[in-house]
Amino acid sequence: MTETRPTVRLRPKAEARAIRHGFPWIYADELVTDRRTRALAPGSLARLEDAERQPLGLVTVNPNSKIIARMLDPDPEAEIGADWLAARLSQALALRERLYEAQYYRLVHAEADGLPGVVIDRFGDAAVIQPNAAWAETHLDALVAALVAVTGVSTVVKNGTGRARGLEGLAEETVVVRGALAGPVPVPMNGATYMADLLGGQKTGLFYDQRPNHAFVQGLARGARVLDVFSHVGGFALAALAGGAERALAVDASAPALALAGQGAAAMGAENRFATRQGDAFDTMTALATEGACFDLVICDPPAFAPSKQALEAGLRAYERVARLAAGLVAPGGFLCLCSCSHAVDLARFRAASARGIGKAGRRSQIVFTGFAGPDHPVLPHLAESGYLKALVFRLTA
Amino acid sequence: MTETRPTVRLRPKAEARAIRHGFPWIYADELVTDRRTRALAPGSLARLEDAERQPLGLVTVNPNSKIIARMLDPDPEAEIGADWLAARLSQALALRERLYEAQYYRLVHAEADGLPGVVIDRFGDAAVIQPNAAWAETHLDALVAALVAVTGVSTVVKNGTGRARGLEGLAEETVVVRGALAGPVPVPMNGATYMADLLGGQKTGLFYDQRPNHAFVQGLARGARVLDVFSHVGGFALAALAGGAERALAVDASAPALALAGQGAAAMGAENRFATRQGDAFDTMTALATEGACFDLVICDPPAFAPSKQALEAGLRAYERVARLAAGLVAPGGFLCLCSCSHAVDLARFRAASARGIGKAGRRSQIVFTGFAGPDHPVLPHLAESGYLKALVFRLTA
Repeated sequence: MTETRPTVRLRPKAEARAIRHGFPWIYADELVTDRRTRALAPGSLARLEDAERQPLGLVTVNPNSKIIARMLDPDPEAEIGADWLAARLSQALALRERLYEAQYYRLVHAEADGLPGVVIDRFGDAAVIQPNAAWAETHLDALVAALVAVTGVSTVVKNGTGRARGLEGLAEETVVVRGALAGPVPVPMNGATYMADLLGGQKTGLFYDQRPNHAFVQGLARGARVLDVFSHVGGFALAALAGGAERALAVDASAPALALAGQGAAAMGAENRFATRQGDAFDTMTALATEGACFDLVICDPPAFAPSKQALEAGLRAYERVARLAAGLVAPGGFLCLCSCSHAVDLARFRAASARGIGKAGRRSQIVFTGFAGPDHPVLPHLAESGYLKALVFRLTA
Repeated sequence: MTETRPTVRLRPKAEARAIRHGFPWIYADELVTDRRTRALAPGSLARLEDAERQPLGLVTVNPNSKIIARMLDPDPEAEIGADWLAARLSQALALRERLYEAQYYRLVHAEADGLPGVVIDRFGDAAVIQPNAAWAETHLDALVAALVAVTGVSTVVKNGTGRARGLEGLAEETVVVRGALAGPVPVPMNGATYMADLLGGQKTGLFYDQRPNHAFVQGLARGARVLDVFSHVGGFALAALAGGAERALAVDASAPALALAGQGAAAMGAENRFATRQGDAFDTMTALATEGACFDLVICDPPAFAPSKQALEAGLRAYERVARLAAGLVAPGGFLCLCSCSHAVDLARFRAASARGIGKAGRRSQIVFTGFAGPDHPVLPHLAESGYLKALVFRLTA
């Protein structure tokens, strides 16, 4: 089967050593892009050789992408069929089964789970797959079949939205490819219940990545008045309610997201401690300050303000502004949790921007927690930048 | 009372802005060190002014230290007496009472808790205080009285060991200053029981800082064969046993520390699942490899290999070597937890050294967890370097 497999070759200056040690990507300027390579269909499989024609492994090639090749297997002759896919999925499943009692987690986190560009979130009996690289699109049927075989899920949704697909030249499409869905799915996490809309929601319907950060904030919530800004479907707010918060106010620009948050609160029997305010986060925080509102625990988990390096400076100013506005709403001795999911903003820069904002609000602080995405979002040691999510919890001492 | 308080002044080029925004230290080359300042007794209180004679706050001065002054209070006339000390201790206590049910925690973490150079660990009814800056030594009686008044502890140990005191020119001395101690104290943490020797042990007898990292590793431990290298009093090993590990082997160079670990295991009723091996960590790991030993979960929490910038390169090589030796003892699909408590080694460098070692052992890995010291070890945003402890959990996929 692999005899007809084409071969692609690194340029002499490319870093073959990093690839041998596990770096999973080859950038367009590292590959010899002759006419034959440029003519490969997106998602094609190919043998990768270094400049001295020594084999490096099996890659998938997308001539339309800046990441022109992604490593699939150190064996250049590996068969990417049902067995190979099942082995990767089983290895990913084994980690999650060790981590969690209930079957609600990110099952596959792309490169770090050996399935480049593939994201799969599991919601009990259902799964949502994001094929964000061309090879996953061309192998989708086999991937879905292996997913069903390995996990036993009965419903599979293909979610073809998001920026990554655009970079790969893939079209948008969200569709149920196996089974059926009847409305939002209740998701248990940290003792709270979230309602996940697997078809219409953001990304795969729920952000599992914040699980450990939700848990830490939950540990601070007993008896607290909580404000959750950029709440989405109630991520931090419902975790706080499950942790014994006196009450929680969720703010989001999306009315459908807040409606799901409300359904989650109701499913928890906490609807009388839960309120929402739909609107722009900056405007709403300003309004709350004018009203003299005060909270023991404020969380801001905004969308990526700096999705690219070009947007870094503007993004840092936005994080600083969020911190300044939010700090003004925190009671003395209370807590402020600030999050960033911007790839381009590293922890040190995010911490500095947050501290500047808190300082401009006239507050002093100590950092009590630094968190990242949960363990169902593993990262490759060679791709530390995939650690995109940062959460900082400040205690405002004065 | 404060009329006779001396005044010290920043040099024109010193960063008064950072100090105004909460940076707590003034280095010797930032202060005008005239004869009068050089003659101040270590631990003296003084008003700090900027180069334009604008007040910056109240500092404690130690002319013998590279950190010549430490900020105590933004009010230059603040009285450092019983009320002031009780207020700082109460604020610190409020955080810990929110975090923990049981009274076993770091109560005061120096600068971040507004008590520069002062470390206090609480063990239920007892507390161990490390006065690591000169002012704390001169104010020790008032500090101990305030500690007893605020917390109600009946026993207080002064632990005057450790590198920090040497830098301040303070002598070594460990003594019970209030109450009495009858042998090691049992400490509940993460469902395990540790035996802490408050008089003869390392630092204050137990390392509370690893609590969240112990907890994460514990979540991986069900049914696992566990190896805990540099185990001290059984930190990770006993947490793993409490999490349902099949068995745990603790390795340490210190026979007294391992004896305490054994007492802890016995107190948990887990002595039949617990074993120790006394010896050099590198030698013991090499011997275990020769014996063909294999573990599902290996933890290495060594002493600081790079306590200073000068020791950085040698330290990184030692971390790499630890990772290489330990990775060879991990079963396929198993976990490796590597820790560093070196100030001079940042997270990125530690991660890279660890990944190099794992790669040299011929293993592929994914990082599933990055942890720091627990929330009873807060850090000042302006002093990120005080985030000394790093824990990485790798899953070895092949």
